[in-house]
Amino acid sequence: MSAAGKAELLPAMLTPFDEEGRVETRLLREYVDFLVGRGADGLFALGSNGLFPLLKAEERERAVAAVVEAAGQIPVVAHVGAATTEEAVRLARAARRAGAAAVAAVTPYYYPYDEEALRDHFLAVSEAAGDLPVYLYTIPTHARNEVTPALLRRLAAELPNLAGVKDSSRDFAHVQATLSAAAEVGRPLAVFVGTESHLLAALTLGATGAVSGVANVFPEALRAVERAWHQGSPVEAVEAQRRLDRLRAILGEGPAISPHYAALRWRGLDLGRPPRPIRPLGSAEEARLRARLREEGWLEEADAAGR
Amino acid sequence: MSAAGKAELLPAMLTPFDEEGRVETRLLREYVDFLVGRGADGLFALGSNGLFPLLKAEERERAVAAVVEAAGQIPVVAHVGAATTEEAVRLARAARRAGAAAVAAVTPYYYPYDEEALRDHFLAVSEAAGDLPVYLYTIPTHARNEVTPALLRRLAAELPNLAGVKDSSRDFAHVQATLSAAAEVGRPLAVFVGTESHLLAALTLGATGAVSGVANVFPEALRAVERAWHQGSPVEAVEAQRRLDRLRAILGEGPAISPHYAALRWRGLDLGRPPRPIRPLGSAEEARLRARLREEGWLEEADAAGR
Amino acid sequence: MSAAGKAELLPAMLTPFDEEGRVETRLLREYVDFLVGRGADGLFALGSNGLFPLLKAEERERAVAAVVEAAGQIPVVAHVGAATTEEAVRLARAARRAGAAAVAAVTPYYYPYDEEALRDHFLAVSEAAGDLPVYLYTIPTHARNEVTPALLRRLAAELPNLAGVKDSSRDFAHVQATLSAAAEVGRPLAVFVGTESHLLAALTLGATGAVSGVANVFPEALRAVERAWHQGSPVEAVEAQRRLDRLRAILGEGPAISPHYAALRWRGLDLGRPPRPIRPLGSAEEARLRARLREEGWLEEADAAGR
Amino acid sequence: MSAAGKAELLPAMLTPFDEEGRVETRLLREYVDFLVGRGADGLFALGSNGLFPLLKAEERERAVAAVVEAAGQIPVVAHVGAATTEEAVRLARAARRAGAAAVAAVTPYYYPYDEEALRDHFLAVSEAAGDLPVYLYTIPTHARNEVTPALLRRLAAELPNLAGVKDSSRDFAHVQATLSAAAEVGRPLAVFVGTESHLLAALTLGATGAVSGVANVFPEALRAVERAWHQGSPVEAVEAQRRLDRLRAILGEGPAISPHYAALRWRGLDLGRPPRPIRPLGSAEEARLRARLREEGWLEEADAAGR
Repeated sequence: MSAAGKAELLPAMLTPFDEEGRVETRLLREYVDFLVGRGADGLFALGSNGLFPLLKAEERERAVAAVVEAAGQIPVVAHVGAATTEEAVRLARAARRAGAAAVAAVTPYYYPYDEEALRDHFLAVSEAAGDLPVYLYTIPTHARNEVTPALLRRLAAELPNLAGVKDSSRDFAHVQATLSAAAEVGRPLAVFVGTESHLLAALTLGATGAVSGVANVFPEALRAVERAWHQGSPVEAVEAQRRLDRLRAILGEGPAISPHYAALRWRGLDLGRPPRPIRPLGSAEEARLRARLREEGWLEEADAAGR
Repeated sequence: MSAAGKAELLPAMLTPFDEEGRVETRLLREYVDFLVGRGADGLFALGSNGLFPLLKAEERERAVAAVVEAAGQIPVVAHVGAATTEEAVRLARAARRAGAAAVAAVTPYYYPYDEEALRDHFLAVSEAAGDLPVYLYTIPTHARNEVTPALLRRLAAELPNLAGVKDSSRDFAHVQATLSAAAEVGRPLAVFVGTESHLLAALTLGATGAVSGVANVFPEALRAVERAWHQGSPVEAVEAQRRLDRLRAILGEGPAISPHYAALRWRGLDLGRPPRPIRPLGSAEEARLRARLREEGWLEEADAAGR
Repeated sequence: MSAAGKAELLPAMLTPFDEEGRVETRLLREYVDFLVGRGADGLFALGSNGLFPLLKAEERERAVAAVVEAAGQIPVVAHVGAATTEEAVRLARAARRAGAAAVAAVTPYYYPYDEEALRDHFLAVSEAAGDLPVYLYTIPTHARNEVTPALLRRLAAELPNLAGVKDSSRDFAHVQATLSAAAEVGRPLAVFVGTESHLLAALTLGATGAVSGVANVFPEALRAVERAWHQGSPVEAVEAQRRLDRLRAILGEGPAISPHYAALRWRGLDLGRPPRPIRPLGSAEEARLRARLREEGWLEEADAAGR
Repeated sequence: MSAAGKAELLPAMLTPFDEEGRVETRLLREYVDFLVGRGADGLFALGSNGLFPLLKAEERERAVAAVVEAAGQIPVVAHVGAATTEEAVRLARAARRAGAAAVAAVTPYYYPYDEEALRDHFLAVSEAAGDLPVYLYTIPTHARNEVTPALLRRLAAELPNLAGVKDSSRDFAHVQATLSAAAEVGRPLAVFVGTESHLLAALTLGATGAVSGVANVFPEALRAVERAWHQGSPVEAVEAQRRLDRLRAILGEGPAISPHYAALRWRGLDLGRPPRPIRPLGSAEEARLRARLREEGWLEEADAAGR
């Protein structure tokens, strides 16, 4: 999952839905091509942007298998985290059977869990993943519980297949602590940031790359930062980061996730409508979102294509 | 759901599990008798203390039906909140069929939802509940999203079967705002506190009663506060409230929920073991919990019975 | 400082200023009469509402002496807290010489101080106060540092003249913990709430009364709560508390403190203009404040008097 | 205040005290030489690390004049922020008379101030500073109020002598927003970070440098980060940043500020004892601090010198 000198960018993919609210698999090939063509190095499937908490286990299994098939040679990290250990284990086994390149698991959510309970949970997931690399996923705004530096160090010592962390903590001090802890464990651990505004700063501090929700519609927005950074163009890198920050802010207005579906539709891919209580944008919200994306130059391509 | 002059106390019931991790229904009659015999006025089933986020919909349906049957004449509020609107609607219909006295629904969780999305969600639940009273349930530490006073006022105007709120916000300012909003809507709305330390203060300010996790093992701890308050004995009421505060603190140490199962076992009822990642108490934790409960006089009855 | 059965209400007095920004002492007699005539049991001088952090030590000394003189038989609690221990000690000695009934001291502010440093600070203040009762004052929104229950217990054991706490934590859980700690120290400690929305709930739980900013203009708003509570009229008490809550919200809009000066002016007392950076209300702000106070019926008296 | 390609590092100087607790000016020349010899580009005097809130205005004036004299050709930024506008204005005038290179002012503290009040305050300071550059200083953990990006933009438009910001917000998202706002105002504004852990990331994003408390004892710890970054050695830069992070953590244990005085004493300079309620380290705290500094290699120089 790591290439010399170049950071890795994985879109946290959206999940397509059909009219009945079931996962729609027919558009996946096209969506994968879209993402890879704009700079994705791999795919992160069925994560928070993929709406995993709103899907039954069997739907998640089906979706991961379809993404892996559609991805072909592109590596897929299958998110298998769940509210119960039993379901996460089941999903990890299924991801392995389906041919995923790696699995990732968010901390269990809703209830508070202490380090001991989280360790037991991740241990079970790691065993179920077998020889697949395992990534821990921390997003305390959503899942309440965190992968602390202490837990990371402990699991790095206990889980031979632990490969890294996705840190979506929205707290750069936590990202720094994660990076420091990862650097101390004595073997390479990847650290992916999930908060796009952290990208350039985190790359400077040694991060591996990003697993990004913005990249599920605009992977090139992150690639621009990464490329300028990689090529040693600090001024361009900062400029690209600020443009990314503004894009993140635009997509973050209004209801969760729906702006991503709308923007992707304007870029030519209609992935349907997410299950309730995710609510679609109202028409005024759509108009405003579209206007702001255009102002920032993010819909020119689509516009040029006559959409 | 409201009696003149006397506050209502509903335990937020634990869910019994068998060896395979399925909901065990055989012990329910005994558990109901235990709770009612110690001061419960009704039952709140499959809420946060009942571990609803760790259970599949079909298990929840089965459990609610069994509780209603075991409860007989005792009113059961069936919690039907879920991560998706579809599941909450399904459960509300099932609760109605099963004969529940009312339904309650937590705000959807994990993702942030704005007032519009929450309103749509609760509207769907309300329609599914038909003629059953509906209670909104707010517990932002767990579910992230809140029933704000503004949302409460709006839903009171829109939902004819809205009957009240369970406020487990752990924030007394929020409880006060909920009580004020409920008092202004022009028809009676019940406000139950879910944070036991708020009981006496909230009763003073007009709350209807409590839906309580502590009461799933020690309903008499809340009844003591309510009785002293009701009888006009302020000094005893404060004393009982402080004893309740200490009990709440004792049960709140260590992993979530498990201390309740352990304490109930010491009181004579073994409800099995909750699904992972809820972890059982270690032996040192058990010993400490038991010692602290004894110090406070909460296990005397069980001890006297030779346990 | 405590009377059987009746709660004590102390306005946290405003400080009058002259045209040059110095403390104006000529209006104090009239202001004291105003407050006592509307329900004040005593006076809290030069606290946060009295703008102590904006005044030099010599001005504070002069102001306290003038308040004590104007107060006559009415007891004055002189706030002597300061950023340095040296200044707090100086002010405590001066308050004693001036004839204050008691002193109070906020935790030192700006820097974080641990329990040890706070203990040393309050010990020095206590010694300087001699035989005067000493109240600890906690307002973490302003002063950052808190009087924790642990610090309260420790100082209760060490300081023979410790008489109680003013808890302006805006956190009812902290107020409850303060009340519980105070009840356990083996001798009477007074607990005054500083957050008016806590008044009725705190009285129910054993608080002594309030030291209140709202009461520096509208002491009768708190007296109404206290009287109904004392007379055993729970419905009236709740109604008065909600009216007080709304008044607190109205006075809390816009810049700090200035709304109190404006409202007091409309009630007939012009205490001048506080030092910058406290900013006066703009004319639109004044109009809005006045309209809202009238809507709630708080300016009728003044209006009736032809103002 | 800005040099091409190289970041600027200004220690937030400690203030020396004599036995009577007055500012001791005799050691200043030696302290300045110490700092400049270890990498300081300029000096920030009488800031939070300089204990300004514990000093009377006349002491602050005297201290700034002495620092400027001792500094000779080294530029001194005199911090003139205060609780009142009047005092900040007085100090700004005095700093100008004394020959400071620039002034800085923290937001007023203790009370909440809105944008309007803060704007008026900084406007008055700016006028008093005349032709001196003015830096805004934001440290919300201490001063509660913040320099928001909106306020920064507004003041950049209104104050011709506004030269930049010291951002000690401990919140990297705020630092990023400050940097973005500063980049948009149409003329160069310097952004100094005050939280040492932000140094490398902020330099990457365009920061000017740091005004640092750690640098009041160990300026070389920041210079090592800056040099590696400036020379294009990313691995060394990250390593130096992590060493700095650990140093910051070590100095941050125990009471505020006192560890800096102790460490500087071990490096050969005894600046006396800060006023209470700042408390000195206990002997166990001193031993632990010294051991940890040695483990990290920060006292070798002093040890080699036989101390």
